[in-house]
Order: sequence, then C-alpha cells, then structure tokens
Amino acid sequence: MFKVTFQFENGGMIDAFATEGENLLEVARKTNVAIDAPCSGNASCGKCRVKLLGGVLDSKKTRHISDEEYEQGWRLACCSKISGEVTVQVPDIASAYKSRMKVADLSSKDEVKIFENAKQQIQDAGIELKNTMEIIRVQMEIPTLDDTMPDNERFERAIKAKTGIPKVRLPYSVLKKMPQVLRMAGFKVQAVVRKTDRDVFVYDIMPEEEQTVIGGLVVDIGTTTVSALIIDMQSGEVLAKGSTGNGQIRFGADVINRIIETQKPGGHERLQDAIIKETINPMIHEMCSSIGFNSDHIYRMAVASNTTMNHLFMGIDADPLRMEPYIPTFFKTNALYASDIGISIHPDAHIILAPNIGSYVGGDITAGTMVSMIWNRPEFSLFIDLGTNGELVFGNEDFMMSCACSAGPAFEGGDISCGMRATDGAIEACRIDPRTMEPSFTVIGDEGTRPVGLCGSGIIDVISELYLCGMISPKGKFVGEGKRIRHDKYGMGSYVLAFEEEAGSVKDVEITEVDIDNFIRAKGAIFSAIRTMLASLDFDVTMIDDVYVAGGIGSGINMKNAVNIGMLPDIPIERFHYIGNSSLTGAYTMLLSTPAEKKTYEVARNMTYMELSTVPTYMDEFVAACFLPHTDASMFPSVELYQK
Amino acid sequence: MFKVTFQFENGGMIDAFATEGENLLEVARKTNVAIDAPCSGNASCGKCRVKLLGGVLDSKKTRHISDEEYEQGWRLACCSKISGEVTVQVPDIASAYKSRMKVADLSSKDEVKIFENAKQQIQDAGIELKNTMEIIRVQMEIPTLDDTMPDNERFERAIKAKTGIPKVRLPYSVLKKMPQVLRMAGFKVQAVVRKTDRDVFVYDIMPEEEQTVIGGLVVDIGTTTVSALIIDMQSGEVLAKGSTGNGQIRFGADVINRIIETQKPGGHERLQDAIIKETINPMIHEMCSSIGFNSDHIYRMAVASNTTMNHLFMGIDADPLRMEPYIPTFFKTNALYASDIGISIHPDAHIILAPNIGSYVGGDITAGTMVSMIWNRPEFSLFIDLGTNGELVFGNEDFMMSCACSAGPAFEGGDISCGMRATDGAIEACRIDPRTMEPSFTVIGDEGTRPVGLCGSGIIDVISELYLCGMISPKGKFVGEGKRIRHDKYGMGSYVLAFEEEAGSVKDVEITEVDIDNFIRAKGAIFSAIRTMLASLDFDVTMIDDVYVAGGIGSGINMKNAVNIGMLPDIPIERFHYIGNSSLTGAYTMLLSTPAEKKTYEVARNMTYMELSTVPTYMDEFVAACFLPHTDASMFPSVELYQK
Repeated sequence: MFKVTFQFENGGMIDAFATEGENLLEVARKTNVAIDAPCSGNASCGKCRVKLLGGVLDSKKTRHISDEEYEQGWRLACCSKISGEVTVQVPDIASAYKSRMKVADLSSKDEVKIFENAKQQIQDAGIELKNTMEIIRVQMEIPTLDDTMPDNERFERAIKAKTGIPKVRLPYSVLKKMPQVLRMAGFKVQAVVRKTDRDVFVYDIMPEEEQTVIGGLVVDIGTTTVSALIIDMQSGEVLAKGSTGNGQIRFGADVINRIIETQKPGGHERLQDAIIKETINPMIHEMCSSIGFNSDHIYRMAVASNTTMNHLFMGIDADPLRMEPYIPTFFKTNALYASDIGISIHPDAHIILAPNIGSYVGGDITAGTMVSMIWNRPEFSLFIDLGTNGELVFGNEDFMMSCACSAGPAFEGGDISCGMRATDGAIEACRIDPRTMEPSFTVIGDEGTRPVGLCGSGIIDVISELYLCGMISPKGKFVGEGKRIRHDKYGMGSYVLAFEEEAGSVKDVEITEVDIDNFIRAKGAIFSAIRTMLASLDFDVTMIDDVYVAGGIGSGINMKNAVNIGMLPDIPIERFHYIGNSSLTGAYTMLLSTPAEKKTYEVARNMTYMELSTVPTYMDEFVAACFLPHTDASMFPSVELYQK
Repeated sequence: MFKVTFQFENGGMIDAFATEGENLLEVARKTNVAIDAPCSGNASCGKCRVKLLGGVLDSKKTRHISDEEYEQGWRLACCSKISGEVTVQVPDIASAYKSRMKVADLSSKDEVKIFENAKQQIQDAGIELKNTMEIIRVQMEIPTLDDTMPDNERFERAIKAKTGIPKVRLPYSVLKKMPQVLRMAGFKVQAVVRKTDRDVFVYDIMPEEEQTVIGGLVVDIGTTTVSALIIDMQSGEVLAKGSTGNGQIRFGADVINRIIETQKPGGHERLQDAIIKETINPMIHEMCSSIGFNSDHIYRMAVASNTTMNHLFMGIDADPLRMEPYIPTFFKTNALYASDIGISIHPDAHIILAPNIGSYVGGDITAGTMVSMIWNRPEFSLFIDLGTNGELVFGNEDFMMSCACSAGPAFEGGDISCGMRATDGAIEACRIDPRTMEPSFTVIGDEGTRPVGLCGSGIIDVISELYLCGMISPKGKFVGEGKRIRHDKYGMGSYVLAFEEEAGSVKDVEITEVDIDNFIRAKGAIFSAIRTMLASLDFDVTMIDDVYVAGGIGSGINMKNAVNIGMLPDIPIERFHYIGNSSLTGAYTMLLSTPAEKKTYEVARNMTYMELSTVPTYMDEFVAACFLPHTDASMFPSVELYQK
C-alpha cells in the first residue's frame, strides 16, 4: 500500500492508500475526490488532468498532454498507475461546479417568456391551469377548561368545516409543530394543503399573518446540464431560474459510463450524491438565496429527465437499462417524496416525475412532447430534443412514435475542443466572409463579451459556413489555406475563430477536424434517425408539416444552417420552430396544472417506442448521413455553395 | 468561562465551558453528560452524585452526603455551582442503562402466559384475531425483448392478479430494491404487505425461498420502566420480551420535570433521544440479537404510554399538558412512521398508538382497559394501573369513568431508599414474625438469590406486616425497639430486612420512616381517588364487583396486605385480580388484531374523564387516607392487628 495525497488547487488535501498498479482515477473516485472525466477513464477526452507534485507515478503519455506540459508534471489520471508514494495536485471541482452555476436575471422578459407561452398554449388546448395546492385560513376557538379538545382534532374540524371535505391528513411534521404554532398564532392559522375530493393533506401550518407563497420546484436533469425553476404554485410566476452542470459528469459524459460506475461498490450512492448533494441541492440553495425564499416552503417538485437520469436520481439500479432486454424499474411512479432522497425542500414534498416510455426515451421527452403540443394538432409534426442523446417524436393528434439515437454531447458543446454550453462567452451565431474567410459572430452575454468557446448553435453555423465557403470538404476536412486555417504536426486542420488576444480565454477559440468529425456523426445520427423512423411509417421527410427543435443547443440556432449541414430535412425554413428547453417547460406545466400532469401521462401512454438498433437499414442511413450535407445531395436541393 | 471536565467512572472524559455560578447539573445536561436526577435538580432524591477530583466547586452540603463522603469529594451536582476550573467524576450512565436492560427467558411459560390469555379473552369477546399484514408470493414472467414492461408494473400486475385488489402502493424503499431482488430471485418473490379492501401497501420484497416472519414491535413506555415485545404478526407468538429503565429518568422521575426540561434549548431533542436512541433502539437491538432477528423485518409497531410519554416520544411539545387548560396535541393519530422519529425497525413501519383520553389518562390506560375486559361485562369493575401515576377506570359495558392521581413512583420502587423494580434481587413478598420481629421473604430470581432491595409488592407486605405487628403507628412511625429497628442521629427510624452480610448488595436492605411516609402518600392518593370517583357516581367502594390491578408493582402483590394498609377497598379478597403490565398486553392485542385496535379506539371514546383536582372533597379524602389503614377505620373492618 502506498500513500496517495490529493492536494487541491486552492488549498486542502486528502490522503488515500492504494495498492501498486491501481488506477489513479479509480483511487480518486473511491476517495470521493472529484476529477472530471467525461469519457470515464478511456483516455479519450483528456479532461482528467492532474499535476505530479512529488513521488512517483507510472503514467502513459497521451496526445492530450504536450511535451512541455508533461515536463511540467501534467498527467492524465486515467492513464496513471500507482507505483509508489505520490502527491498530485487536483482541481477543486466543488468550486468549479459552483462557478458553473448560474441564476438567471428574471428582469429580462425573455427568460420567462417561454413559460408564459406554455401556460397560454395549454390553456388554449382546453387544459385548466389549476393544481391541488392551496392555502386555507382557519380560526379556531381558544381551548378552555370546558373545551379541552386536543389540538389536532380542533384543527381538523376547522379544516373540515371550511372545505366540506371529510378527511384531513396531518403528517408527523405538522403534528410536531402544531402546539407551538397554534398558541403563537392565537389559534388563527393558515395551512398549506393539497386538496382533493377525497381528502385534505396538510403540508404546513403557520400563523395567519405570515406572508406565504406555495413554492414549487421544477428540475430538468439533463445528462450534461441541469436546469431548475422555483415557481409560485398559485400564480405560476417563475420566481427563480437556475442552471448548472450535472455533477455526475466526472463519472462519464454519457449514461452508459455512469451506469457502469454504479456497479462498483458504493457506486449508486456516489452517483446519487453527485446529482442531489452536489448539483440540485446547491442550486436550490443558490436560487432561494437570490430571491430570499425559504426552501422549506417548496411543497412540490416536478422532475423531467431521461430514463437513466431518473433512475440514478432515485438511487435505483439502472444496470438493467443497458443490458438486454433493457428493462426500466418504472415508467411512472408516485412513490417519491423529498425526504426519501434528501432533496432540501419541505420533507413531505411530493416529487412527480414526467413518465418514461422506454429505456432510451424518458420523461424529458414526454414532458417536451407535452409542451410541443404536437399531440393536439392534425398536422404531422416532428419533435426533436437535441440533448446528450437525440430523441425524436413524430405524429399528430391520432398517433405518436418515438425513437432515440446516440448523438453524443456535441449539441451541448461536449466532445468539441472549444465547446461549451449556451452561456456567457459562447459564440452562438457566426458568418464567414467567403472572400476574406474572416468570421463575424454573436457572443452570448453583455455587449463586448469576448468569445470563450462555441455552443451548439455556433458550431452548426461555423460548420455550415466553412462548408458553403468551400473551406471544408463534404467529409469535413480542411481544403485550401488561409490565415485562420492551420494544421498541427499530425496534419490535423483547424479554423481559428478568435486568436488568443481577441478571445476571452487563455487560448485560441478554434474548431478542429476532430470537432467537425464529432459533430458530423452527431448530426448524421439525428438525420438518419428521422429518415428511418419516418420510413417505417411510409413517410418521407418532405411530408413533415412542422419541426419543433428543443434542447440546450441555444436559442440562436439557425435552422437554414442546420439544413445546410444535413442535420435537419430540407423543408421550408418557416416550418422549423425552436422551443428551447422543452423538458423544463413540460415539467413546469405538470407542476402548475394537475390536468396537464394527467395529460402528460396520457400522451406518454399513447406514444409508441421504436428501437432503432433493431432496424436493419439504420446503420446504412447513418453512414450515408455522415457527410455534408449527405451522400445523396438530391435530398438537400436548397443547399448551394457560396459563389466566390 | 471556566473549563469543566467530566471524567467517566470507567474512563473517557468530556470538556465543557461554563460561566461562574452555573449549576453543575445544568452544565452536564447541556453537554449531554448523563447524570441521573429523578427529582430533576431539587436536591430531594440525592441521586446526582459526582466526585470532585480537582479544581473548585461551590457545593451546598445536603442530608444525602455524609460528612465522611463529603470529605472523600462526593457532591450533589444539582447543589453545586461553578466557581472555577473543575474536574468531576461522573458515573457511566450508558453502561448503567445497559445493565438495567433485561431480555426475558421465554422458555418459562409464565413470561408469555399473559399474552396467551389476552388472545383468548379477546376472542371470547367475539373479536377476531386478524390483522392486515400478510405475505404474498408471486411469480412473474421473465422480461424479454418482446415483453419490456417495467419492473414495477410487472410486479403490481402480479399482485393485483393474486389479490383481486385494484390498487398496489409501492413506496420508494421497495422500488429502490426491486430491480436487484427481482433478478436475483428469477422473478419469483414474496412480498410483505398490508392488505385492505382498498389497496395493498408493499413493505418489502424478497426472494421467494427466504424464510420470512412478519415482525411486530410492542412497546409500553412507562415513565420509569419501558417494556417491549417482538411478536410474529401472523401467529401472535411472542418471540422476544425485554424491559429496561426509561432513559429520560435522568431529567426527572416524574413527567412534570421532564416537560420543564423540554422547554430549555434543545430540550425536546434531548428527551426524545433519551427514549428513542438510548432506550428503545438499544432494547430492539438486544431483543433482536437474542433471537437472531433482523430488525428491518419489524413492519409495524404499537405503543402504549401515558399522554406525556407519547408526546415526548414523538418530540411534540408537552408543555400545554401541564399548563391550564391542559390540552394535548392529540388523543389519537395515525400519522407516525418509524422513519419519522428514527426507530430502528423497517423505515416504513407504521406506528400505532393506544389513544389518550386526556392529559393525565393516556394510551397506557386505554390499552390496559381494553385487556381488563371491564367494557365487556355487566358487573361493575374497577381497573387500577399502579404506574408512576395511578390511574383508575370504573364502569361496565354501559359506561366507564376514569381519573388519574399523582401517586409518584413508589409502586415501582421509586422514592424508596431500597426500592427497585420487580426484577432479580427484589424482595417481592414478606412476612414478619409478630413475636421475634424477624422477617421471612421471597426474592425474585433463581433459588438462593440474595435480596438487593424491595419492589412494590414487597413494600406493601413489609408495611402491612410492620403495622399488623404493631411496630409502626397508623402514621407510619416506628414504635418500640428491636434488633432490626434502629434510629439515625436525626431520630429517623428504620427496619432492616437484610443486613449487609445477608444482602446481595453493599449495604443493608431496609425500609425507613421516610420510605413508609412516601408509600402512605402513594396509597392514600389511590384510595382517595377511588372514593372520590365512585362518590361522584353515587357508588360506594363496597359496590365494586371486581378489581383489576395492573402495573409494575409485581405479580407477587398480596391483595389482603394492600387492603390492610388501606390502599385497596376492603372487599372480599377473591374479587381482586392482578393482571400484570396491562398496557403492554393491550398494545399487544392492538398490534395483533385490527378489530382489537378498533375496539380500543371505541373503548377510549366511551370513557369519561374526571379531573380530580376540580373536585372539592378530593383533598379531604386524601388527607384522611394518609393513615394506616385510614382515619375512618370502619371502612376497613377486616383489618386486625396480630395477637402477640
């Protein structure tokens, strides 16, 4: 056994003991030292960098570490084995996660417009905006020696008299605070309740004069990004909005690597802690702090997420999801309460989950489909969610079919050297002058924000422009020369969007052939999935009436450019609609409106799932689609290269 | 601030800081150092002894510390103020509690006879012996690519098919273990469920072949003593039986002092921890260990206790119980689950509570009344529970009235210098030869067990014998001389039952005038309560058909002697029945039989509570009854002194 010391970048250290030959990344994970490793230790992402400070380490050199960096002590944890006592410097991920956390400024109407729209749309569809949460004010007689009814009966009678509902359920938490609250309030109280025809469940009681808002929490757990809202359950107003990275990412960027991690001792707890303790709870704290809200006043929560994410969130074994015959533990469950899994809101808060419909089409898609409203129209619509996976739903008011394809994290900026989420500093839109080859772009953030990287919509634009300018081949290889085009010693080409001195980061913002290749595979997966699913229904892509694009790709998505690169079918541009994070919006409607919640379950029941991997033609479609725009150019008649 | 070091008798120490003048007992409580203080710091019990090892302490000398002991450093914590840095030795209460814990040997039929009887009696009364807990075995189809129903639906369908009940409730805990259990068991499982007409609630699932018993936990929380059973919920068999001291006793022997303690910062938690973490959970652990039972297989719990005890058990403010108008938070509640308060059994286990009917007549009495069966007879019966308080119920199948009197802990050996519970070493029965004044007694335990102290039944015998022999006056003062009668320097008389060399303890086993005085007050409280309650109904004590005596006084109680000292009314001896710990037995029937549980609620609803303190004549009755046998000897015609 050798001592392994992890020294954090900003101070503090943790010691561990490891046997000779043990993998350093594994040692870190067992010790609960967070080292980002999106590829989960396959030496492919280059993110698990550590710096050797002392002792010995048996490390393989990889393309992710330059000679100079190796000299300085940089190593990849996943490529290092323990060979003696060692001290390594590791980044302080906890602070890193914190810095990724972002609470939105709601003074901008744009941040909440999407939720206002969703409210309007479901009402237009005849769905009532009402839920079961309510505040009931009651005043009781003050007990005397002649009126010694116990507190709970006194309170229950008052609620029954007020509501006419014969059954009142008082959980332990309310019973526990009841004697003090009643006496403090002079027996005039308000109760936060869930009211149905059958019973009244009491979440909380407080003195009548206290200002009370029934808080609701909406969370979209993406594989890469987690977004959340705190809402007023009565008005539907969005009180706070936040987003952050999914803390599980250090165990793998994709769901498969995370499931594999759960199978190691303590793995379920590690993955569950990463999403709850390290991601959701800190975000709740940030959001509540930003608006001065007591998180105990959040009485209900809605979660939308893919099937693996909701299993890991609940600490439920997801291994059967990845092993034939791919069986989830649940599609739908009503069993979950905040205290079961330690969400830091009111302990009795019920957690509702947007329903899964299969192992690879989960609640994020059913929630998204709900707010896409495709189930409410006679026209044939295609709903596409560009998350870490791509999921598709096609249909109308009569039928719906769905499928999933493994697009990878490229749409959210993953697997791209300068990729990033659509937040401050991201290039979200770009044009390239076909003569000068000079780029001009829009950067997310206040005026003057300098570019740090590229989000999904920016990548689409850059690849489209490079292709239309003839700077890259249909295979995505750089052709021709230029000030901004360069090749490294291995011959790999890249295009520099912003040199270090122009950029808001310590290096050039560029796009490489590897990035382009990754992105082409991602878009190829989407397009081939669309073709395959429609073909199974004897539909051609040109028969699609409307396309609803959702996901973290960024609201700046240029649909024409997405068509140009062969990601979306070549139909008239006005038929495309970007609907943002529909998973979050769908969960928002489920929380706000009980009829919308029920409708979502109904929508899910009516969706047919199609397993693409069992369709023999899918792989051929995919290979044909890994080309700009496609090997069959006749499918993209509108795509024309620029005239120089 | 001065440093206060508590050094434990058997090693270990805890430091605290205190301001000048702070009371040492308070400092210990805040620091969570357990020092027994039944009188809760009123300098009356003398139990909070500590030994000054170093530093200074401003202590008052009391009658509980002899000159010699004071010299040796002994002090009462409650009579000591901080006046500088100090180190005191404190007893190791945790080990003391542990040593008080006793798991019964069930090979003796006597230990379980009372429960067998109770089962028979409720059946004789037409109450069915059935409850809602059940084991259901189901076998499911193993999923395939063509049959991809999620686990929870597959399981729910199987249960619905087997039971015909349309709703199955799966809590989070079951959902969480489901994928592993189903696969490990090849989809053949057994489920522990609670089955009603409306739904099936699933507590647990396990492979079909596992040997499974549905465990139930019965607990009687007495103010002084806590008793418990683990039973097989299906057969009703008692699997383990244990008893121990109530860990709250260090905060006061009576309920009032404990309620006062809860009003200090952190007080509710301290009192709740004392009963749950320090008393009930260790006892569950001991009982389970003794029979090799997994405490997670205890799926339901029944608790009987007085109103203050069940409030403190739940961590609910009991202060309104002691303040006019004396309002409990609840009489009856269904809200409690094991996980709410950290009982170490299955977290979803429902905890049912025998209902209270007033602030001073609680679930221990309603449960006891249930098994006394007085509600099922035309005759007029009196049920007396001799706990730390005395509670009475009088009535028949048509009406029942109850009241409570503050008898103090004497019946359980409290407030008596050599008093103890009815366990090994207790003198449970005694005769004194009127000529020689030599005692002969029965000691609880194996043959040859030497006496350590006196339990309630022993005290009754000794006082009765001393009185009938003419050795004490009707006021309980020693008259005459003898080898075993002695007086201390303050003139206080005592009678030695066993000299140190005969006793199983390090000092003489004796009874003092103070003990006798305390006991006379206790029996006076009982008798005057009987008289007052019956008078309010225009009944005379001679009209009682049967008397059922319950409580920790000991099965050896000699009813004639209890009449001789004027504790029980002078009616024919054959009308008295000792029914043991009826609170525990009642809770046992509630757990075992759902109809019995319902009947107990009904019995409670039909009981009228009478507040003795509001009856003007009660105090006169009490004063008249503090006499051997009574100031009005005509009420006890059968009591005659021995002829010498």
